[in-house]
Amino acid sequence: MQHFHSARLDSVRRKMADEGIPALYVSDLHAIRWLSGFTGSSARLLVGLDRAELYTDFRYREQAALEVHECSVHIISGGFPQEVSSSVASLGGRVFVQSESITLDEAERLKAVEGITNVTGTRDFLAELRMVKDSSEHDALRKAALVSGKVFEEVLGLVTPEITEQELAAEISCRHRHYGGEGDSFDPIVASGAHAALPHARPRPVRLEWNSLLVIDMGCMAGGYASDMTRTVALGKVPREAEEIYEIVREAQQLGLDSAVAGMKACELDTIVRSYIEKRGYGEAFGHSLGHGVGLEVHEFPRVSSLSQDILLPGMVFTIEPGIYLPGKYGVRIEDTVIFHSRGAEPLQQFTKELVRV
Amino acid sequence: MQHFHSARLDSVRRKMADEGIPALYVSDLHAIRWLSGFTGSSARLLVGLDRAELYTDFRYREQAALEVHECSVHIISGGFPQEVSSSVASLGGRVFVQSESITLDEAERLKAVEGITNVTGTRDFLAELRMVKDSSEHDALRKAALVSGKVFEEVLGLVTPEITEQELAAEISCRHRHYGGEGDSFDPIVASGAHAALPHARPRPVRLEWNSLLVIDMGCMAGGYASDMTRTVALGKVPREAEEIYEIVREAQQLGLDSAVAGMKACELDTIVRSYIEKRGYGEAFGHSLGHGVGLEVHEFPRVSSLSQDILLPGMVFTIEPGIYLPGKYGVRIEDTVIFHSRGAEPLQQFTKELVRV
Repeated sequence: MQHFHSARLDSVRRKMADEGIPALYVSDLHAIRWLSGFTGSSARLLVGLDRAELYTDFRYREQAALEVHECSVHIISGGFPQEVSSSVASLGGRVFVQSESITLDEAERLKAVEGITNVTGTRDFLAELRMVKDSSEHDALRKAALVSGKVFEEVLGLVTPEITEQELAAEISCRHRHYGGEGDSFDPIVASGAHAALPHARPRPVRLEWNSLLVIDMGCMAGGYASDMTRTVALGKVPREAEEIYEIVREAQQLGLDSAVAGMKACELDTIVRSYIEKRGYGEAFGHSLGHGVGLEVHEFPRVSSLSQDILLPGMVFTIEPGIYLPGKYGVRIEDTVIFHSRGAEPLQQFTKELVRV
Repeated sequence: MQHFHSARLDSVRRKMADEGIPALYVSDLHAIRWLSGFTGSSARLLVGLDRAELYTDFRYREQAALEVHECSVHIISGGFPQEVSSSVASLGGRVFVQSESITLDEAERLKAVEGITNVTGTRDFLAELRMVKDSSEHDALRKAALVSGKVFEEVLGLVTPEITEQELAAEISCRHRHYGGEGDSFDPIVASGAHAALPHARPRPVRLEWNSLLVIDMGCMAGGYASDMTRTVALGKVPREAEEIYEIVREAQQLGLDSAVAGMKACELDTIVRSYIEKRGYGEAFGHSLGHGVGLEVHEFPRVSSLSQDILLPGMVFTIEPGIYLPGKYGVRIEDTVIFHSRGAEPLQQFTKELVRV
């Protein structure tokens, strides 16, 4: 792992040099983990062109020693901005912060520290570098996807007319914790009947609606990385229209997998899939983005929406998840997380996308 | 519930009037829930002296209509600071923000909106009001404590020499999800043997160490409110020293429960308990604060530490959790969450604090 952290620090320093940034104060814990390997819940990282310093407290002394190799570790007893100040001062007193994650309070306290002459916000500075994953990240993402795939197959075996949406969601959470160790990457969505027409439905304490569709959207954290998958299954005998929209979503999702080409804008991929659903007469019924990046966070860069100017590059990991939602009736969503290679998209979920009937 | 939200808004407006604040831009979701009842994951709340406006997006239209009664609801399609601007402008253009929760980025974008002349940070403005809970909050906290108490008794029945720390932790998480609906309030700590000497130990994939002590620190979310409890139990035949430190912690914890008096500073309570442990010869072995407030968040105000100037007031809810940690040997912590009344502290956990032997 050390050479990955070293390579990531190098990529950050190249970007810092390009943009004239002498010191970067990293406050986002995902970015800290990405750059240093540190997994504790309280830390800051200061990156200079010739140094990288991790600051944490006594609770994490042993853990930091085990996990962190490419940064010097400083165990501090006071607050973060203050204790980092002498190092910032020795770097010239100018420091850049992650404005999308640092609080106004911390930024203001950083400004007030003696020796710090200038605090400037940067936006998504590291998030952009984190978009293209390395092989150790791909391995972690594959493992997380395997856990969710196994859990999905198990909970599908629990689907009966007696079980409630909430109970099924709880079974998913439990198994994610058992097999993945770190639990859900987001609260599972288990939505049947008309409830499935809400893209962000919360599981209800009601039994699954039979003779309709069931949407299950779930993911876990394993080794610090997220998984995210959705399948829609038929419970009992479903209306012909429900089967038709299922087929359209399945074809649209496959079109998304097949159409991703290195160098295209993410909005182009969104448009290809969206146009197909429009052409089939359900454009109005697909109200959300095609997908999103997945990594240390379950929602990260690249954006995969109709507005996204992000360029698809080999190594990126993102979801392709079109849906059709008919209010008051039913909903369909099919989602794979894919590793994007120069040869095309590799879906991380193996479970069939043919309509499964329970 | 409506009259609680109305009373909370009134308390905020009184404080705003006292401090000359014409408009408060609330970005913290816990505070938004506390003031409006809204439980969605994306919202902002603007509080003026004569209005309260909740901003969220189309996904939450139905939910906001069901949950929010004391604020007007605005469904927006653009970003938060921009869409709130016309209302801020009509309030005079000056707005105060929660500097401990708003990001630097959002604060800067708020400043850049036309019609906004001044953005000022306030620190812990609402957190201080949220310290004293009302009866609806006490009820919710009691329910959350009941769930964890039930789960603790169940998982104690699963303790054998074969089960691992991680497996036991997973059983806790599963049951919290099953009975409480919303899962853990923090990752459970299950630590046996020398591992229990780490106050923030993470469960390991190793079997429980027998003939030693086992620390279980756990809590759930239920109805939006957190529980938090710790018990230490004896596995097999434990050394005399382990039994001795258990008794000292038990007595110290009881002293904490008995000594809390309305009007005292939280640091005084910390000192009473800490001095007792010092007197018994283990002052060095109690390295953390006595406790912390509990509510919509598992760690909130009041601070209950040796430095805290917070005054204990009836209605507050906080933990009392002394511990003794002997590195390389074993650890003990006993924790109750209490509702503090003028007549004294009401522990929310019923499980015995006599040493239980498994």
